[in-house]
Amino acid sequence: MKVGIVDTTFSRVDMGRIAEKTLRDELPNAVIIRYTVPGIKDIPVAAKKLLEEKGCEAVITLGWVGKTITDKISYGVASMALQLVQILTNKHIVDVTVHEDEADNPSVLRDIAIDRVTKHSKNLALLLRKGGEGLRPYAGKGLRQGHKDVGPLES
Amino acid sequence: MKVGIVDTTFSRVDMGRIAEKTLRDELPNAVIIRYTVPGIKDIPVAAKKLLEEKGCEAVITLGWVGKTITDKISYGVASMALQLVQILTNKHIVDVTVHEDEADNPSVLRDIAIDRVTKHSKNLALLLRKGGEGLRPYAGKGLRQGHKDVGPLES
Amino acid sequence: MKVGIVDTTFSRVDMGRIAEKTLRDELPNAVIIRYTVPGIKDIPVAAKKLLEEKGCEAVITLGWVGKTITDKISYGVASMALQLVQILTNKHIVDVTVHEDEADNPSVLRDIAIDRVTKHSKNLALLLRKGGEGLRPYAGKGLRQGHKDVGPLES
Amino acid sequence: MKVGIVDTTFSRVDMGRIAEKTLRDELPNAVIIRYTVPGIKDIPVAAKKLLEEKGCEAVITLGWVGKTITDKISYGVASMALQLVQILTNKHIVDVTVHEDEADNPSVLRDIAIDRVTKHSKNLALLLRKGGEGLRPYAGKGLRQGHKDVGPLES
Amino acid sequence: MKVGIVDTTFSRVDMGRIAEKTLRDELPNAVIIRYTVPGIKDIPVAAKKLLEEKGCEAVITLGWVGKTITDKISYGVASMALQLVQILTNKHIVDVTVHEDEADNPSVLRDIAIDRVTKHSKNLALLLRKGGEGLRPYAGKGLRQGHKDVGPLES
Repeated sequence: MKVGIVDTTFSRVDMGRIAEKTLRDELPNAVIIRYTVPGIKDIPVAAKKLLEEKGCEAVITLGWVGKTITDKISYGVASMALQLVQILTNKHIVDVTVHEDEADNPSVLRDIAIDRVTKHSKNLALLLRKGGEGLRPYAGKGLRQGHKDVGPLES
Repeated sequence: MKVGIVDTTFSRVDMGRIAEKTLRDELPNAVIIRYTVPGIKDIPVAAKKLLEEKGCEAVITLGWVGKTITDKISYGVASMALQLVQILTNKHIVDVTVHEDEADNPSVLRDIAIDRVTKHSKNLALLLRKGGEGLRPYAGKGLRQGHKDVGPLES
Repeated sequence: MKVGIVDTTFSRVDMGRIAEKTLRDELPNAVIIRYTVPGIKDIPVAAKKLLEEKGCEAVITLGWVGKTITDKISYGVASMALQLVQILTNKHIVDVTVHEDEADNPSVLRDIAIDRVTKHSKNLALLLRKGGEGLRPYAGKGLRQGHKDVGPLES
Repeated sequence: MKVGIVDTTFSRVDMGRIAEKTLRDELPNAVIIRYTVPGIKDIPVAAKKLLEEKGCEAVITLGWVGKTITDKISYGVASMALQLVQILTNKHIVDVTVHEDEADNPSVLRDIAIDRVTKHSKNLALLLRKGGEGLRPYAGKGLRQGHKDVGPLES
Repeated sequence: MKVGIVDTTFSRVDMGRIAEKTLRDELPNAVIIRYTVPGIKDIPVAAKKLLEEKGCEAVITLGWVGKTITDKISYGVASMALQLVQILTNKHIVDVTVHEDEADNPSVLRDIAIDRVTKHSKNLALLLRKGGEGLRPYAGKGLRQGHKDVGPLES
């Protein structure tokens, strides 16, 4: 099985390396194919090429998003395009993004990125190994990526 | 007849369980197929796979949306993708979402989720049993899911 | 000729009834097919089914939109999906919506809804009877639906 | 060669007449086909029908956009749909819009409309006569439609 | 190999000239094909024509975006359309935009444009020469176009 990783040179954390390491641990027999692009708007076509031209079964994409309104629009555009690629291919793309407005402290932002990429890489591995049943035990459990889980709302 | 349910691990209420129970009551002969994903952006491809690969006649999706502008953008992206899946398949997907800015009180938010999922599961069952005529008696009646009905505006 | 009407149970005015009555007056030989759904996000696939599965020549859709930012996003999503249906079918869908932020007074809001649905039903009838030439005498005339016409800007 | 014009009854300036006159001056041998619709959300399917059913080589669309957030969303939806039509047909649609928030003074708004439609009709004629090379001498020149050109930024 | 450049007459900097010069330096054997359009909403179909009708392997597009909310919506629309073109063709389009709200000082804005076009032209050349591996050494390095690189977040 081949799994793709798309990351960017815009990102301030080497999220591709973290995703690659986690996916190798979780899916030891998988072939990992990486693709690095400048920024988030370059990600969707790269993901589509990994799925269609390289034969990947699924892709994890690692975007880094600035603070301005223009950055937020670009985020929406890139994420919508990733939806289109998933719909056209019937394959999962886990669309991970870290937003610079999530924390003022660079070290906190870095920790968010590491936690988010690690957990979402595991999510993707579980989807690949067990399909729609793999995450079923955690349905409604208030899991979070980038932060601690918040848990379910008590009745 | 097969009916699909997509829910998430991000949600703080186990909406999939409520939908499954309600659909079993409303459509006792239907086969219910569930699919759990991490978050709302993972829902549309899961819904498409349930319709195309699992043979579902319709799907109910159960999203939980955070409070930030990024969350709102992600909501728009995921909902637009669910529109595309419906348009490509000519099948209904009832796109249920609970937004964390709907209530500060966790218990109120939980009640909103339960009410909304229950009512929309019944809506989907009615669409499946009677098509576009099933909800006709309630057209313009100001029905609400998550809250009490507000009723029609009097002349 | 068949013409479709999609309305919702969320609406607080029975706009489907008004559209049906107006279309029957304007197009006495047309067959009117109605389809009622829960809310605006359920409208586009219903419109597509009316065009493709029921053989409608055109559709009028009647949405009611709440006041929150989430409602506005849902409006954009539903309207975009209605554009896609039109583009895929090359048929007109007149996408009528009433927004709760248009008036605080319920009676005013109701009057807006009635006026808008009536006028847009007539617009659709004219497009069906005369194509792109039917509304030509009114081009640039500042017509409004839901309110009185504002007229052209004088030089 | 056939060229299409789509205008609306919502507009407060008869932009279709201005576009038709300008296109006749610029492309004396072209056949001009007009299509009038109620508002901006009705424009894209009309443009597609002109390109596909009437054999137009290109279209200019003339939208008038209100001041509310709902109007802005509708603008985004209609413009996105016009992008889809262009992408599906590989033909240019010059998407001209006048926004009521561009000027408080009606006479100024009218002048903006006239200037913008005239200049964009000439732009379309140039694209049709000379393709991607026709506007090359003006690349980066800070041309504006609706207002005076602002010119390039000096070094 | 053919590479396309789309620029606009709306831009206040002749970005097409800068991109052409940089691409000629980076890809001396490539044939550069240019296409000038009025504004950003005219870019996507031009890019698609360059890819499909002129046989380009990739395209760089050079948009200039005004300060108003309407301009921001138009940016989102044009960028989304560029995503669609990339997804339909499986080819890269590097979507470069300069926004007038990035700097009040015209000279600073001009410097942003020059830096951004130059660096992104080099990015495109690298993607064309080496595919998804070419930018790998810079993954997560906090590169910026239009400004100095900000570098990775230290642990």
